[in-house]
Amino acid sequence: MTDSGAGVRRLLSRRSFATGAVAAAVVPAALGTAAAATSDKPAAADKGGDVRNLTLYMEKLPNGEMGYGLRPGEATIPGPLIELTEGDTMNIEVVNNLDVAASLHVHGLDYDVASDGTKMNDSVVQPGERRTYVWRTHAPGKRHDGTWEAGSAGYWHYHDHNVGTEHGTGGIKKGLYGPVVVRRKGDVLPDKQFTVVFNDMTINNRTAPNTPMFKAVRGERVEFIVITHGDFFHTFHVHGHRWVDNRTGILEGPQDVSRVIDTKTTGPADSFGFQVIAGERVGAGHWMYHCHVQSHSDMGMSGVFMVTEADGSVPGGMHDMHDMHNMPGM
Amino acid sequence: MTDSGAGVRRLLSRRSFATGAVAAAVVPAALGTAAAATSDKPAAADKGGDVRNLTLYMEKLPNGEMGYGLRPGEATIPGPLIELTEGDTMNIEVVNNLDVAASLHVHGLDYDVASDGTKMNDSVVQPGERRTYVWRTHAPGKRHDGTWEAGSAGYWHYHDHNVGTEHGTGGIKKGLYGPVVVRRKGDVLPDKQFTVVFNDMTINNRTAPNTPMFKAVRGERVEFIVITHGDFFHTFHVHGHRWVDNRTGILEGPQDVSRVIDTKTTGPADSFGFQVIAGERVGAGHWMYHCHVQSHSDMGMSGVFMVTEADGSVPGGMHDMHDMHNMPGM
Amino acid sequence: MTDSGAGVRRLLSRRSFATGAVAAAVVPAALGTAAAATSDKPAAADKGGDVRNLTLYMEKLPNGEMGYGLRPGEATIPGPLIELTEGDTMNIEVVNNLDVAASLHVHGLDYDVASDGTKMNDSVVQPGERRTYVWRTHAPGKRHDGTWEAGSAGYWHYHDHNVGTEHGTGGIKKGLYGPVVVRRKGDVLPDKQFTVVFNDMTINNRTAPNTPMFKAVRGERVEFIVITHGDFFHTFHVHGHRWVDNRTGILEGPQDVSRVIDTKTTGPADSFGFQVIAGERVGAGHWMYHCHVQSHSDMGMSGVFMVTEADGSVPGGMHDMHDMHNMPGM
Repeated sequence: MTDSGAGVRRLLSRRSFATGAVAAAVVPAALGTAAAATSDKPAAADKGGDVRNLTLYMEKLPNGEMGYGLRPGEATIPGPLIELTEGDTMNIEVVNNLDVAASLHVHGLDYDVASDGTKMNDSVVQPGERRTYVWRTHAPGKRHDGTWEAGSAGYWHYHDHNVGTEHGTGGIKKGLYGPVVVRRKGDVLPDKQFTVVFNDMTINNRTAPNTPMFKAVRGERVEFIVITHGDFFHTFHVHGHRWVDNRTGILEGPQDVSRVIDTKTTGPADSFGFQVIAGERVGAGHWMYHCHVQSHSDMGMSGVFMVTEADGSVPGGMHDMHDMHNMPGM
Repeated sequence: MTDSGAGVRRLLSRRSFATGAVAAAVVPAALGTAAAATSDKPAAADKGGDVRNLTLYMEKLPNGEMGYGLRPGEATIPGPLIELTEGDTMNIEVVNNLDVAASLHVHGLDYDVASDGTKMNDSVVQPGERRTYVWRTHAPGKRHDGTWEAGSAGYWHYHDHNVGTEHGTGGIKKGLYGPVVVRRKGDVLPDKQFTVVFNDMTINNRTAPNTPMFKAVRGERVEFIVITHGDFFHTFHVHGHRWVDNRTGILEGPQDVSRVIDTKTTGPADSFGFQVIAGERVGAGHWMYHCHVQSHSDMGMSGVFMVTEADGSVPGGMHDMHDMHNMPGM
Repeated sequence: MTDSGAGVRRLLSRRSFATGAVAAAVVPAALGTAAAATSDKPAAADKGGDVRNLTLYMEKLPNGEMGYGLRPGEATIPGPLIELTEGDTMNIEVVNNLDVAASLHVHGLDYDVASDGTKMNDSVVQPGERRTYVWRTHAPGKRHDGTWEAGSAGYWHYHDHNVGTEHGTGGIKKGLYGPVVVRRKGDVLPDKQFTVVFNDMTINNRTAPNTPMFKAVRGERVEFIVITHGDFFHTFHVHGHRWVDNRTGILEGPQDVSRVIDTKTTGPADSFGFQVIAGERVGAGHWMYHCHVQSHSDMGMSGVFMVTEADGSVPGGMHDMHDMHNMPGM
């Protein structure tokens, strides 16, 4: 079990990005006004409208894997988390350091055919070349005809749409995918973010005991971003925590009739997200997250969400990480 | 890739039906008051309450397929779109021109056991015979006990429940299925409608390049009706367009907490629908729709939603239909 | 096809439980004030806050099956229905009469790691031993930071998490699972409750014609609790009845934008529930319920919801139960 890398982000990193530092998570400038940790009220997304530029590198990784990264030689699986606020535009220059033509196809956002990332629309990148994809987003609003247009806010994702087949089956299998979060003005911002991608029979192309160990301090507001890829269907489950099956994963108020769940059926290219308060009403501990298809979890689609007390301690029975590594399915 | 047939309907065809002409789509008389194309406000469903009569023919098709049709020898896969408004009743006389006993089973509507379409309830049609099925619908309302009763509005479907097995496995596989839409008074009406049925590893019993090419002019209000049948699970995805995961697929207003999606996990007999404005915020172009299970799209569960400019032109990279036909998975 | 056992419960049994009698369903004391059958207004859940104690026995059953039961030697598949109202606490002493270590893992409720039911958290029960698991629940409310916390109300379930593999794959397959319902104050209470567990290719570990026959009198308020387990995905469908895809399965009012459905895609450890009025708008009859994956229903994932008139009669075509037993998939 490995420490989570790109998936973990502190409020600090938002500010880091806002001031130009390199961060694994690419977040909107509007998020720079995050509240201090001692504040009662959680930080919320500001109004969008920024135009930002980003370079993404498609890179070879060991063992035939491939990934997207923010710098040459630094690709990760999943690729960097890209965050926008409704109204933002993102110009993404994609540099193809692979030896096959590949692309960037995004879900949920606004883009014209030149940014579709498909061979059909002549929008893939040849090896050694670069291409700029433009993603736009918008807030909900009334159309001139009186109907409502939904906004772009959601838990989305991007992936290759060209390697192996015209649908990117080979690129996705090898790791060319990553998370996208679009916020609405006023959406509550998390303290930490974890990305779980069920890609065939793996989590983030890994199986237990090499799946991510997600760590949070009790009371932190933690965001899970869950994406599925490949050929199989899964059910995402986390122990001791539950969420609301709506846009934000957060109860919007007493009038919200959405189901509260701790297990969600999901299939390829489906994505959703939610926020939990780490250990809320259940305390610190090692809480499993796993696919609940029995054979999938047994084959290693399982990991641990470790919630510590403020002093770093964790109650409960796992006295030795070695024990966990020897567990079936871990 | 073929032109979409029964799935495409213009406002004109509603009026045609209202005046007695034969149309592939069977729509309520109440829809006859559709707004002109130049109107700002989209047409909306009137109050229901009509009683209408329809004859459906179960017919043999080439290559062992079977279908429902509005006239002898004119069956289609999927069968004709049947539309009602809450409060309507539809008497459907089914003529069995097959050489096996078959039936009509509908989802979501009100019917008694004589219209169940199952052998268990003695409601199948022998070869050469006919039988009238009665479908009723109702608006939501308060029960005498103070609780709310949901209405019939939804994206539903009908299918055989007797050929091959008591569950109609053989009839469904061969093409005996079709879409049903029940509107609520005030529901926005589309300009065009497309039906996508994921039936095992096919779309409408076809695989690429023979899947439907859906065509719309930028700005038209397009309704997708998505149904799944058979033994497999799928994820419906369309490029460049997204919808709301609620009853209508349309944002109901700022208070609507539903998730906005562009991919939906679906299984046998599941159905849903939504409306998009063709090319809204993304422009004209060839936009793929496909099952996002990678092996399914690679095997041909893929098609094109072609959004043209008003003059019929389409920007983007597919200069030659021949190119598309040679694409893997197309 | 067998009579439904533990899944069927009358209002009487709530009162029975409240007065100390043994009942298959374990319900909160707060439910004791159920309305008389002649009342116009259905009974509703009272305010929670009780602390209750329960003993659950894990028992061997014939043919290698295992189950949970309220008394030694009386285990059922599924295990007893456990009901709580938000605010209730349940202390469950689990007695392991199996010859393997097993556990109790619950979904959706609040518990600390000592009640997780996993080997990782040292919370399994050795053969011949006993262990108390504590489940807590809570109502929705505002956090100190101004955000809303969802409540515990929902259709949940419990299962073993240790037999066969660390994920309980063997225990679940053999029958170690059961339903949990948590009500919110004011939630409408049903007259009868039926539990359907799609466990691999079975319903409650049985296939037709041995699946439950659920019986209700026309007009009774019937609750279905639907849970999935194992390795496969399913679609739950019932003939002649439909529900709302929200927390309660009941339309909350005209503002409720949830989809109305009669078929729901579900995967392992997913659960949902809903209430219908037996035969509402469709009348008495034998109404099939089944998995709508065609091969699954053909292999026996099918049963009957029998709605009788007040005098016990049933209209419709099934004149002989023997006919039904000879049906494919029955």
